[in-house]
Amino acid sequence: MDERITALRERIDELNLELLSRLSERATIAEAIGRVQTELGLSHYDPVREQAMLETLVAANRGPFTDAAVKSLFKQVFQASMQLEQEQDKSRYLTSRRTHRSDTVVSVDGVPIGGDHSPVLIAGPCAIESREQLGAVAAFLASRGVRLLRGGAFKPRTDPYSFQGLGLEGLRLGRDACDAHGLAFVTEVMDAADVPACAEHADVLQVGARNMHNFTLLRKVAQSGRPVILKRGLAATIEEWVMAAEYLLSGGNTEVILCERGIRTFERFTRNTLDVSAVALVKLETHLPVLVDVTHSGGRPDLLVPLTKAGLAAGADGVMIEVHPNPAVALSDNKQQIDFEAFDAYLEATMYHELLSPGRTELYGA
Amino acid sequence: MDERITALRERIDELNLELLSRLSERATIAEAIGRVQTELGLSHYDPVREQAMLETLVAANRGPFTDAAVKSLFKQVFQASMQLEQEQDKSRYLTSRRTHRSDTVVSVDGVPIGGDHSPVLIAGPCAIESREQLGAVAAFLASRGVRLLRGGAFKPRTDPYSFQGLGLEGLRLGRDACDAHGLAFVTEVMDAADVPACAEHADVLQVGARNMHNFTLLRKVAQSGRPVILKRGLAATIEEWVMAAEYLLSGGNTEVILCERGIRTFERFTRNTLDVSAVALVKLETHLPVLVDVTHSGGRPDLLVPLTKAGLAAGADGVMIEVHPNPAVALSDNKQQIDFEAFDAYLEATMYHELLSPGRTELYGA
Amino acid sequence: MDERITALRERIDELNLELLSRLSERATIAEAIGRVQTELGLSHYDPVREQAMLETLVAANRGPFTDAAVKSLFKQVFQASMQLEQEQDKSRYLTSRRTHRSDTVVSVDGVPIGGDHSPVLIAGPCAIESREQLGAVAAFLASRGVRLLRGGAFKPRTDPYSFQGLGLEGLRLGRDACDAHGLAFVTEVMDAADVPACAEHADVLQVGARNMHNFTLLRKVAQSGRPVILKRGLAATIEEWVMAAEYLLSGGNTEVILCERGIRTFERFTRNTLDVSAVALVKLETHLPVLVDVTHSGGRPDLLVPLTKAGLAAGADGVMIEVHPNPAVALSDNKQQIDFEAFDAYLEATMYHELLSPGRTELYGA
Amino acid sequence: MDERITALRERIDELNLELLSRLSERATIAEAIGRVQTELGLSHYDPVREQAMLETLVAANRGPFTDAAVKSLFKQVFQASMQLEQEQDKSRYLTSRRTHRSDTVVSVDGVPIGGDHSPVLIAGPCAIESREQLGAVAAFLASRGVRLLRGGAFKPRTDPYSFQGLGLEGLRLGRDACDAHGLAFVTEVMDAADVPACAEHADVLQVGARNMHNFTLLRKVAQSGRPVILKRGLAATIEEWVMAAEYLLSGGNTEVILCERGIRTFERFTRNTLDVSAVALVKLETHLPVLVDVTHSGGRPDLLVPLTKAGLAAGADGVMIEVHPNPAVALSDNKQQIDFEAFDAYLEATMYHELLSPGRTELYGA
Repeated sequence: MDERITALRERIDELNLELLSRLSERATIAEAIGRVQTELGLSHYDPVREQAMLETLVAANRGPFTDAAVKSLFKQVFQASMQLEQEQDKSRYLTSRRTHRSDTVVSVDGVPIGGDHSPVLIAGPCAIESREQLGAVAAFLASRGVRLLRGGAFKPRTDPYSFQGLGLEGLRLGRDACDAHGLAFVTEVMDAADVPACAEHADVLQVGARNMHNFTLLRKVAQSGRPVILKRGLAATIEEWVMAAEYLLSGGNTEVILCERGIRTFERFTRNTLDVSAVALVKLETHLPVLVDVTHSGGRPDLLVPLTKAGLAAGADGVMIEVHPNPAVALSDNKQQIDFEAFDAYLEATMYHELLSPGRTELYGA
Repeated sequence: MDERITALRERIDELNLELLSRLSERATIAEAIGRVQTELGLSHYDPVREQAMLETLVAANRGPFTDAAVKSLFKQVFQASMQLEQEQDKSRYLTSRRTHRSDTVVSVDGVPIGGDHSPVLIAGPCAIESREQLGAVAAFLASRGVRLLRGGAFKPRTDPYSFQGLGLEGLRLGRDACDAHGLAFVTEVMDAADVPACAEHADVLQVGARNMHNFTLLRKVAQSGRPVILKRGLAATIEEWVMAAEYLLSGGNTEVILCERGIRTFERFTRNTLDVSAVALVKLETHLPVLVDVTHSGGRPDLLVPLTKAGLAAGADGVMIEVHPNPAVALSDNKQQIDFEAFDAYLEATMYHELLSPGRTELYGA
Repeated sequence: MDERITALRERIDELNLELLSRLSERATIAEAIGRVQTELGLSHYDPVREQAMLETLVAANRGPFTDAAVKSLFKQVFQASMQLEQEQDKSRYLTSRRTHRSDTVVSVDGVPIGGDHSPVLIAGPCAIESREQLGAVAAFLASRGVRLLRGGAFKPRTDPYSFQGLGLEGLRLGRDACDAHGLAFVTEVMDAADVPACAEHADVLQVGARNMHNFTLLRKVAQSGRPVILKRGLAATIEEWVMAAEYLLSGGNTEVILCERGIRTFERFTRNTLDVSAVALVKLETHLPVLVDVTHSGGRPDLLVPLTKAGLAAGADGVMIEVHPNPAVALSDNKQQIDFEAFDAYLEATMYHELLSPGRTELYGA
Repeated sequence: MDERITALRERIDELNLELLSRLSERATIAEAIGRVQTELGLSHYDPVREQAMLETLVAANRGPFTDAAVKSLFKQVFQASMQLEQEQDKSRYLTSRRTHRSDTVVSVDGVPIGGDHSPVLIAGPCAIESREQLGAVAAFLASRGVRLLRGGAFKPRTDPYSFQGLGLEGLRLGRDACDAHGLAFVTEVMDAADVPACAEHADVLQVGARNMHNFTLLRKVAQSGRPVILKRGLAATIEEWVMAAEYLLSGGNTEVILCERGIRTFERFTRNTLDVSAVALVKLETHLPVLVDVTHSGGRPDLLVPLTKAGLAAGADGVMIEVHPNPAVALSDNKQQIDFEAFDAYLEATMYHELLSPGRTELYGA
């Protein structure tokens, strides 16, 4: 090593320590300010103050940094201090594993979801179409040991002229079929005005991908008194998804289950791309249970088994899957739903074979 | 050319014509069925019938096509026939240029948007923050010849703890500022329950990108009696965006303006990627006016001018842009909004310099 | 059901069968033409002939189909026939499971990759930096039961001024370290001119994501006499990836291993998005082994374990991972590589703990 | 303002200035070290030194920052200093407008591309197929005032069994047709080994999207003595694209023209998404000319005119477009190329009508 460099580095080492002591003192004072702000209900972020500080610093700048570099560096310093202030606010980010270390377990009709419990399987048709259709599915799924039935009474459809669901009548059919077969009823709510009716009939409310950013709906669902499955938006970042859950928790609902359902990418062989990294990251960063919707993520029956295995291996606490007595005549999602025979093959090929076997009876095909 | 091939091709030519005559007869009959179905209020798509036909055909198949190939070919035939039936339904797809050939022109407070009219410029702050802030912006913009002011009273924020807008008070401030300076007021509505209040105070309602798939909101906005700006969703396909507009038109609102605001891609240098192909395609396929939001698509002040030029060159009928008296202290979108000086430079650099010049007075900086 | 509809449908049923018989005869003749074309070395696709047929049909069209619909329908017919002709060509798509039903197993230095064999683990530094660095990694990995070492002598770097690898010297260091510790050597080749040198020193050649579409390189690697790991391109579709493998197989190399390494999406929390659907689909559609590169797909050490589990659960035949004696001072990929301690924790947390245990000795930390 | 806050902020103001003076002294010393390093040919980035400094700081840390926050803050400080050192290295980033303020103008056969010159139009078939085909196109384009003809002799094809171009014979046909009609010849080179032949026959070499990351090819093309058109990769970031150009400039070729050709997104109505922000950004950040390829970005003839207008409005210096005598029988890109009649309509609809009119003669259709 060149000795000129060695000499210069000694002075750098001194400066580093001088910087550290001043940064630490500065942060301690910032924390004190933060406490006063919290007490007074003020925001920690005061852009006018920040701008004034930057102007003072730029005016004092004699180089070699450009003014822009000085601003940039001190913005980092401001941000680091503000993060400290934020961490003092205990109520901040209720979704975070830092504020709630242990796994949240949501219990639905005696079935625990999350934590160390066995992965749950939520199955049923895309849409509730008739008493006969739903009764057949409910009987079949119950015979296979499934405990939660999904079925849509309100369907978000891209085309306004497509079948939009049976509405309130669908909710009643769902409740009846579940009661008849000892199942819990999971259904999507699309409209804040429908939250009371959905909460009355269903055991779990679902917020769909198209409504993940519908903050009005999130706030109403937060007050519904029912557990919620929150799907990730079509192209929502993980951060946005967790913040949508934060709307639910901060609104008073602690029984929140996340559901990854594939994101939009350039790939054409699959309808969406199942993002297993997102599953793993929300398990790391939040304490909430997370499911994978294997029907919508791939959009292909031949991927249901591998996506189930991959999702559970990444840490998911369960799976959602669409099952219909006769997919070819379904009023929606024709190509994605599987029939009873295919569902049995699916169970055989996954760990759900063992998990669900106890209560199983041979209704279908008998 | 080998003569064996020539001979075989002669028979192919005969078969082609025989196929055509049968396909045409088949289509004529399908149209007749379609008319009866429309009369009876039945769907043209009957999956049970389709499945039965496919089973009959597969049973009759003696090769060389595989059964899968037979099904695939006849599905094409069914689909082609059904398209004919659908084209008979005159009311289908009100957004389509096939049902409405001439450009829709939406008139806001005497300002025509769409058709051959000069591009409109809609400007204003991200959020309405105070009477002072909005008054300053309104006076400035009016002095520059701008006729429509945008400003949010309800803000969709990813983080539930961020500033969410002034709500009803913001609507009143918006109305007052616009009245004082002769501007039309454009504001976003997020909640179906807020539609009446927004429609009472504002001249144009905006449905934001996060709510493009909020069908409940679309239906309420359709009945508001106000023109609507419908932003493209964060990662909505062009088809989904046009179908969202179809919800508005089929709900009774013909004054719909589309707004492209950039889509989510892998690129990190821009906040979103402005999709000028989408602008051109909705101009080709629909009769509705379309704007480009140059602030949100790039997320960078240095791109406002080129994105404006590119958007208008692709056929856009106007531009939305965020302007704030002091962006550094704005309560949202700090880095994206431009101040008055930058807005003047923007006007100089774009065609809006000439378009807006008449009523201009030197308020700012005077 | 309305009886008018019933009557009309009877005629449709007759027409369906008449269409089927003519389509089948047409296909039989097309197959015969195809055999002559194959014999004469002609392409099956003859666009001039196709255009002539379409013109004849359009001239004969009396409605109700539009001319465009007639063209579209018959293009489907032509395409279906041509697919039959193509399936006759036995050599087509060597990658397809239709031409090669059983799983290909690639054997590297006695380690079988693919089929029912235990998942392989390929580990090592991003770049070969020095004899000391590589010797330390090789000794450590060998002590843990790893059998294949990866290490780059030629590095594709976005910035031309970044460290580009040690080149030929790196190949020699790689060979020596592997020989000393009984490992097989896997290294990336970027330049067709370097294929002989790489093939001389390495046991397995790797084609990187940035070169998946470098057809010149693929052709040279196909003749190298070495097994190849072919990474999926940064934003390559599954189809393009498989076709790149087809270049290798059709060039004479049957020892091809695919490697999924994440695709580019809008998500910012991960470097890329691991596409487990792609892993499952290439296992379904091709007979080739497939790996997942867990380092590059997530770009985060905290995702290595879940991505490994998810990738293997989706059907992958093994994993690639970057390990470096001191990642903080690595000349590339500083933030992604893990050190020896982290690698041991990784083994503990995955099935590789059991798979690799036999030959393990306590070199590291001893 | 609460007076407790006011008092605390005074101390913060003092600390800010103390930090600034130490940061500035530190940066001055770092610059001095940087000069020595440059003199000795050492890298400015010394990760071992950096790690040692961080360890010292963490050891000295007494809070309230976490050790991670201390590391993160000082990494910012290190980075800011290193940026200063790098700006001293004059040769860095030859593509940057900081090192070369004025627009680079590349002159091809007397046609200037870039700067304030009129937009250039480069037209021709996807692939060179025969002497007749190319002669017809060349005569037609010359009659319309086009000065540069594009045509591929080497075609990068996804499917190894597709038409791969005429190779060397194609180069000769291209040279002859251009000579006969006074055109400059632009052709793609795929293989480093083909660079000499391509450079001998063509006036401009093109590096295709699939080869943007083929650094071997870039280095050979840099030494070809010919201007280069560098297409953006299928999903390359703007930064990667500019760095690929840096390979060319640092390899000795200053005549580099960038070409945006659309990026991969989720949108299905277009083949790719033309990124006009990228056009604007490379004009801002680099001094190089940039084109837009309107054929590949949209993949739809009905978008050629709006994408041309949008691309030029965003600042592009010209356009590439595919023209073929009979697209229906073209050996590649059947659906994208336009015929002579459509090209005339394209000229009429764009500014090229006026730009190219002078030398125009009525060959086609006469």
